[in-house]
Amino acid sequence: MTMYELIMKKKKGEELSKEEIYYMVEGYTKGLIPDYQMSAMMMAICFRGMTPTETKNLTISMAQSGDVLDLSDIQGIKVDKHSTGGVGDKTSLVLAPMVAALGVSVAKMSGRGLGHTGGTIDKLESFTGFTTEISKETFVKNVNEIHIAIAGQTADLAPADKKLYALRDVTGTVDQMSLIASSIMSKKIASGADAIVLDVKTGDGAFMKTLEDAKELAQEMVSIGKLAGRKTAAIISDMDQPLGNAVGNILEVKEAIDTLQGKGPKDLEELVLTLGAHMVVFAERAGTLDEAREKLEQTLKDGSALETFKKFVVAQGGNEAEVLHPELLPKAAYIEEVHCEQAGYVSNIQTEEIGRISLLLGGGRETKESEIDLTVGLILNKKHGDAVSRGDILATIHANDKTKLLEAKKRVQAAYLITDKKVEKRDLIKAVLK
Amino acid sequence: MTMYELIMKKKKGEELSKEEIYYMVEGYTKGLIPDYQMSAMMMAICFRGMTPTETKNLTISMAQSGDVLDLSDIQGIKVDKHSTGGVGDKTSLVLAPMVAALGVSVAKMSGRGLGHTGGTIDKLESFTGFTTEISKETFVKNVNEIHIAIAGQTADLAPADKKLYALRDVTGTVDQMSLIASSIMSKKIASGADAIVLDVKTGDGAFMKTLEDAKELAQEMVSIGKLAGRKTAAIISDMDQPLGNAVGNILEVKEAIDTLQGKGPKDLEELVLTLGAHMVVFAERAGTLDEAREKLEQTLKDGSALETFKKFVVAQGGNEAEVLHPELLPKAAYIEEVHCEQAGYVSNIQTEEIGRISLLLGGGRETKESEIDLTVGLILNKKHGDAVSRGDILATIHANDKTKLLEAKKRVQAAYLITDKKVEKRDLIKAVLK
Repeated sequence: MTMYELIMKKKKGEELSKEEIYYMVEGYTKGLIPDYQMSAMMMAICFRGMTPTETKNLTISMAQSGDVLDLSDIQGIKVDKHSTGGVGDKTSLVLAPMVAALGVSVAKMSGRGLGHTGGTIDKLESFTGFTTEISKETFVKNVNEIHIAIAGQTADLAPADKKLYALRDVTGTVDQMSLIASSIMSKKIASGADAIVLDVKTGDGAFMKTLEDAKELAQEMVSIGKLAGRKTAAIISDMDQPLGNAVGNILEVKEAIDTLQGKGPKDLEELVLTLGAHMVVFAERAGTLDEAREKLEQTLKDGSALETFKKFVVAQGGNEAEVLHPELLPKAAYIEEVHCEQAGYVSNIQTEEIGRISLLLGGGRETKESEIDLTVGLILNKKHGDAVSRGDILATIHANDKTKLLEAKKRVQAAYLITDKKVEKRDLIKAVLK
Repeated sequence: MTMYELIMKKKKGEELSKEEIYYMVEGYTKGLIPDYQMSAMMMAICFRGMTPTETKNLTISMAQSGDVLDLSDIQGIKVDKHSTGGVGDKTSLVLAPMVAALGVSVAKMSGRGLGHTGGTIDKLESFTGFTTEISKETFVKNVNEIHIAIAGQTADLAPADKKLYALRDVTGTVDQMSLIASSIMSKKIASGADAIVLDVKTGDGAFMKTLEDAKELAQEMVSIGKLAGRKTAAIISDMDQPLGNAVGNILEVKEAIDTLQGKGPKDLEELVLTLGAHMVVFAERAGTLDEAREKLEQTLKDGSALETFKKFVVAQGGNEAEVLHPELLPKAAYIEEVHCEQAGYVSNIQTEEIGRISLLLGGGRETKESEIDLTVGLILNKKHGDAVSRGDILATIHANDKTKLLEAKKRVQAAYLITDKKVEKRDLIKAVLK
């Protein structure tokens, strides 16, 4: 078997066998197959696609290319959740403690990555003392006791995917659905989850701009999960406007705490309940989605979700007072409002632009070396479909730099489209695939 | 402009501009664009193809990537000929002196390369003392006086093509017509020819197995030549059986000398007259193809073709006696016949297999380091369509190794297909494109 033969086979549109895919992934990870052959293969895959079996084999072989986490010391069914990413996406902060409060084990590996705001770990580090550098023993103990723990991603999780993604990034071969799906799923499978719930976002603020693309990606991932023997479901959710109202790290943490008390934005709560219901059913803590949803709503009402969140933050070194009194968390130097210049209805919010404004203010990372400013960001006081009058507050900017503040105000103003005609509210949940 | 953008553009099926193609070829030649990006581009081209303008720009940019020969000291129109290669192809040995005898300047760069037999230079080195290591001055003087000179290819002729071909060879991106055409034509254009006549072979013994593919390649090359301002024609000729009767270096030289005297195989003579007529018309030494053909036939009858050949060989250090008495050239140790086992008609000769048998006997190079045995090879006494009786001589093997001789005999036997039914003779010239 040679890589040359495999390239020719794929180029002709033939299916690669399991042995061939493992040969390719192992050879590439070890440096035996050169980049220039792998990039030719990736381009051929962009044109020829992959069958579900090929995609599954690629995923598993990448998952097995490095450490595969052994979570056998953790009791019960381990459920993981993954979001394809969007603006204002603080879902994990709310979802994890809610399902944990029902006894569902959430043993999460999270990355930092690049983006409009920090990742889940960055946001949690808003709490003084919080750390993800915990020993395997503490991690397992916390999951068994509180049902929730978060660790930073180990360096050697799916190294094949890491190397392959870096190559695809510079050879124009990122945008192929099976390759995207296998990249995401290889890390989830290496992380040791028994069940996986996927939040695939679609719209202007998402990687998948169209519903069609989002469905295709969701279908690919569900197919991989099932073929790999994992319970898998995908929820396709709207990202044509930011999720909730807050964009920015501490601002999102505060919104998450509000939501854990049942006082959060309704779209965020709805998404969390939908994703959570699937996780609870997969973990066999409820027989039906309706039953699971009721139980989850109960955790918001009876305080058990917030209580679990508090225990989790404290168990990883965080400050209890800041969880109970989030107003203690640091604030930006400048907090200014953006006012509406005409009456009407919000017919569009340029979502990717809102993300870029957060980045401009310093809320995210442009390069791996960037430092995040946890205090900055935006609160969107008006959302899609809202009626507005002249002078209403559209949004509030939190900034630490006057020049950036002024630019942000202008750009937020421009990102809102106001029309005379009443606007139909958009559906948050577009589809559920399983 | 970045290579990434160019890959994405080609992947989407958009046309690359002249500036973009030059950027890519220059960057790649200088090592500024890495192999892994170029191989992704090549694979995208395999799926998307190239427009005639893109192909022309790729060709010229590769031709200009290194030395471009300045043949301005040579008088008149310089005409070059290129064959895509086949079994028993000694065309240049006959064609060059014929057109030179009519005053057409043939200033040839020739390579050695890999193959079933050696290249033109290897064959000419059958003559004691013959060398292609001549100074530029001698080269120009010989072309001006005898109208023919052959030099070994300089190292820096179209280095971009050399580098790109090596990459395509290991990334499954060789078999794309525009890329094949631009590779061939870049070297012809860098060699400084004003007019180019192409011999595109098709059939079992050729790179292009089907007539359709051969026509496509021929069309691509003619299009490049014209867009580059060169008079260009392509003759598509049969390679479903070896050309002439001899396969092997000295055996082919002898056959070439026979042909220069009008005593050669008719298929070889016919091909040489067809190619030559186009060269003579391009060089403006005849007004029509018919007139050119008549003049060429005359060079065989009046001895001027052989006389030119002799002068050329002697001018490059070769032994005159060996040209006039080719029986003086060395012979193989074993010369044995292969006999026909049944009466009927030759309906097929496995041409590629005949080539491989020549290679087995030592007549060609498998790797760049292989030494060629100039004496070995085969004479095919029977060709396609010939009537045969049991016991007739099908072929004669010239070998220097007894074991190889025995294997060759068996394989030649098997390479001939004899049928009861009379077989229609095949057309040698399949098409002419210009």
